[in-house]
Amino acid sequence: MSDITVWTYDWVPAGPRGFVRDLRLRWACEEAGLAYAVRTVPFDERGPEHLARQPFGQVPFLTDGELTLFESGAGLLHLAGKSDILMPADALGVAQTLQWTIAALNSIEMVSVPWWFLEVTGAPDNNLTGWLESRLAHMEDVLKDRQWLAADRFTVADLLMADVLRVEKLRAFGIRPATEAYVARITARPAFLKAHADQMAHFAAADRLRG
Amino acid sequence: MSDITVWTYDWVPAGPRGFVRDLRLRWACEEAGLAYAVRTVPFDERGPEHLARQPFGQVPFLTDGELTLFESGAGLLHLAGKSDILMPADALGVAQTLQWTIAALNSIEMVSVPWWFLEVTGAPDNNLTGWLESRLAHMEDVLKDRQWLAADRFTVADLLMADVLRVEKLRAFGIRPATEAYVARITARPAFLKAHADQMAHFAAADRLRG
Repeated sequence: MSDITVWTYDWVPAGPRGFVRDLRLRWACEEAGLAYAVRTVPFDERGPEHLARQPFGQVPFLTDGELTLFESGAGLLHLAGKSDILMPADALGVAQTLQWTIAALNSIEMVSVPWWFLEVTGAPDNNLTGWLESRLAHMEDVLKDRQWLAADRFTVADLLMADVLRVEKLRAFGIRPATEAYVARITARPAFLKAHADQMAHFAAADRLRG
Repeated sequence: MSDITVWTYDWVPAGPRGFVRDLRLRWACEEAGLAYAVRTVPFDERGPEHLARQPFGQVPFLTDGELTLFESGAGLLHLAGKSDILMPADALGVAQTLQWTIAALNSIEMVSVPWWFLEVTGAPDNNLTGWLESRLAHMEDVLKDRQWLAADRFTVADLLMADVLRVEKLRAFGIRPATEAYVARITARPAFLKAHADQMAHFAAADRLRG
């Protein structure tokens, strides 16, 4: 029995809509057929209650009965423990899913998000560009030879890697053909489309409330 | 029955010694009392065999019988599954350990490593400084109130967070008092000291071979 709630902001500006990371948790629940509710914390005021559950003042976090987890990657691994749709049950499948989930966070996103940050904050030179190019070239080599990252099937590692790679600025910068096809394939899944539409509708409804 | 091997480079220059991430895996094995061997891949030539096991051409990776895992974070979570010294067995302890392990990788290191990269490559301005300051301030708030990150005891989350925060340039930049005391406390553990000494000895022996 689980009682899953995905927590996000009550509202965000137009820019991040479709990319706020509650989407990762919504998507995982949709893939796994796990029932979940969505609740909110204020975007404008991030007080002690919010910081007690997300010490960096961000979203999402996940509650599951008595448990609270922050970090979308930790929430995904928690949900993956509930469904072998997200992570195979055999030791080899677990190992492969785990390594690629962490690679999405710590080999790709660790370069791509700071690179993106320098781009959008108008740094005169982006000294992370060479490093990013190298990481994307390695990913292209990996994705040329396979449809899925782990266990020859969809796993939470594909969910996370595709979410990391689908960022528009990154794709404009130069995602290569096999990587582009991979992102297109993974983000065409009905569970992604529903999670994305639900997030957009959530923030659109918040606009109407703000008037 | 496990048959654990930690893979690292045969040699590295002086700069990264003491910080090559095989140290994280050595340290975890030492904490958990897991027997392990250390084997090497060439630093100078990173060929197809290396890339087949670590697609970004880095170290460490871990083999455990038939399993291979790259990403130090994934290796740590794999080892944590073998020993409740590294991760508690109860659901609340697992959730707390998981969230702080991922936070070390994706909330702190995702900012601190690119920040460090800009510093050492001589970027004229380091536009990641404000973001890093904010993350370190949040960590200080967390560490003011507690000795351990998860489950009121040492876990693999402390191992990883302390390893992320002990980087010298980061400490010089302005780790705050509770964070500094935390790093000092965690890195005084005998398992860290042994792992660190073993890595230093490994690379020193490689110097003598190179003659």
